[in-house]
Amino acid sequence: MRLATIQFCPARGDTAANLNRLHHWISSVDADVIVFPELATCGYFFRSPAEALPYAFERTAPEIAGLVDAAAAAGRVIVCGFAERDGDRLYNSAVIGGKGLATTVYRKSHLFYREVDVFTPGDSGFFVVDLPHLDCRLGTMICYDWRFPESSRSLALKGADLIACPSNLVTEIWRTVMPTRAIENKVYLAVANRTGSETNANETLQFNGCSAIYGYNGKPLANAEADADAVLIAEIDPSLTRNKRFNDVNDIFADRRPELYR
Amino acid sequence: MRLATIQFCPARGDTAANLNRLHHWISSVDADVIVFPELATCGYFFRSPAEALPYAFERTAPEIAGLVDAAAAAGRVIVCGFAERDGDRLYNSAVIGGKGLATTVYRKSHLFYREVDVFTPGDSGFFVVDLPHLDCRLGTMICYDWRFPESSRSLALKGADLIACPSNLVTEIWRTVMPTRAIENKVYLAVANRTGSETNANETLQFNGCSAIYGYNGKPLANAEADADAVLIAEIDPSLTRNKRFNDVNDIFADRRPELYR
Repeated sequence: MRLATIQFCPARGDTAANLNRLHHWISSVDADVIVFPELATCGYFFRSPAEALPYAFERTAPEIAGLVDAAAAAGRVIVCGFAERDGDRLYNSAVIGGKGLATTVYRKSHLFYREVDVFTPGDSGFFVVDLPHLDCRLGTMICYDWRFPESSRSLALKGADLIACPSNLVTEIWRTVMPTRAIENKVYLAVANRTGSETNANETLQFNGCSAIYGYNGKPLANAEADADAVLIAEIDPSLTRNKRFNDVNDIFADRRPELYR
Repeated sequence: MRLATIQFCPARGDTAANLNRLHHWISSVDADVIVFPELATCGYFFRSPAEALPYAFERTAPEIAGLVDAAAAAGRVIVCGFAERDGDRLYNSAVIGGKGLATTVYRKSHLFYREVDVFTPGDSGFFVVDLPHLDCRLGTMICYDWRFPESSRSLALKGADLIACPSNLVTEIWRTVMPTRAIENKVYLAVANRTGSETNANETLQFNGCSAIYGYNGKPLANAEADADAVLIAEIDPSLTRNKRFNDVNDIFADRRPELYR
């Protein structure tokens, strides 16, 4: 299957422009699964729910359905970050939808920095969706979830072959750790980071790009630069992740000793 | 405190020679804690319990007490791998003992490759010992335990500032992952690997050295070559690992969402 990761600089508060760009890639990038950054519809640096609310969508909103329907029409699956409104609450979410798939929404479990002033911690948990036409089981985590080995571990134990990680990363240290997330679980990992910077209330956040698709051995299959739009493509075979043996004795899942873990 | 990691090539089946070398380092290496490789007393590549039994010690054996007593006399703490006999069973263990410390034994939780033909999977679980004179909390895992994020995570959640990892590593991939074990838990990590090769029943294992002491940011504080004896020394401050915050909002332990983890 062909996996794509899109890196760009969403415009904060300009949902029309961002949706337009997302639709452009959905229709034009030749891939079975496309992963977009975190909060790709709205930009990142809001300081209060009131600031973010005008740019948030309910999961049933026509803007979200429009992205998913366009993906389905193009024969693709998308994972795309958006600000989700649910009653009085906002979540830092990602929609997973498109070809052959009931639309689902992952809500970011671990909130980073001033996101805590805007969003409610996610309650969806880590889940895996089956993409039968691609023989692929897709899990999603968002950005700072990478910091916790339990995020990708939970997805892999639930059967993920591929983990999509929409991101708005502002540090560098994730580049040291992300290959481990692939290796320790023997899964593909697609990190769609954004570029550019945002300033709010005299504080500036610089997003560091370098999006990457990692093979299940932790080696990058595709890499982006730090500060330019990028469409990364990799051909992957999700079925190769399922045999967790690496010799005639050891299996990295069967060898686990959960009774000994805190 | 001064932390040392010893890299050498134990002689399989020559416990007298190995104990002699261990005593040499215990008396001469100026360090508060010394970490030795896995199975440092006896060598690695046994194919059956009967083969290993002559070179195994009960945890109360005078040879083990001798190492611990020598460490205590020199004002040091040691972590040293040995083959442990307990009735009919053998464990791939590490003794933790020396100055100001009740001697304890960690039994390797995850057995690698043909170890399953020799040893019983460890039942000690992951535990942390307090070294009050060093203001240090020391956890131990052995070699292939690295492959499971749950090993170092369990130790860190139990309060480890420093993880000792006696090892006989035969792959290279651990060098990509080990820094993550330090970063994701914000702990120091001392990997004492061995060198050389062992052949048994026409199968040869090559041990790849490259022992390292990692700071809690994942950066190596000291590194050894692939194929030479080495004494690595690093000055560390265990108390620096305890504040798991990295900005005014996020704390990598308090931010965990255990209710969402499988």
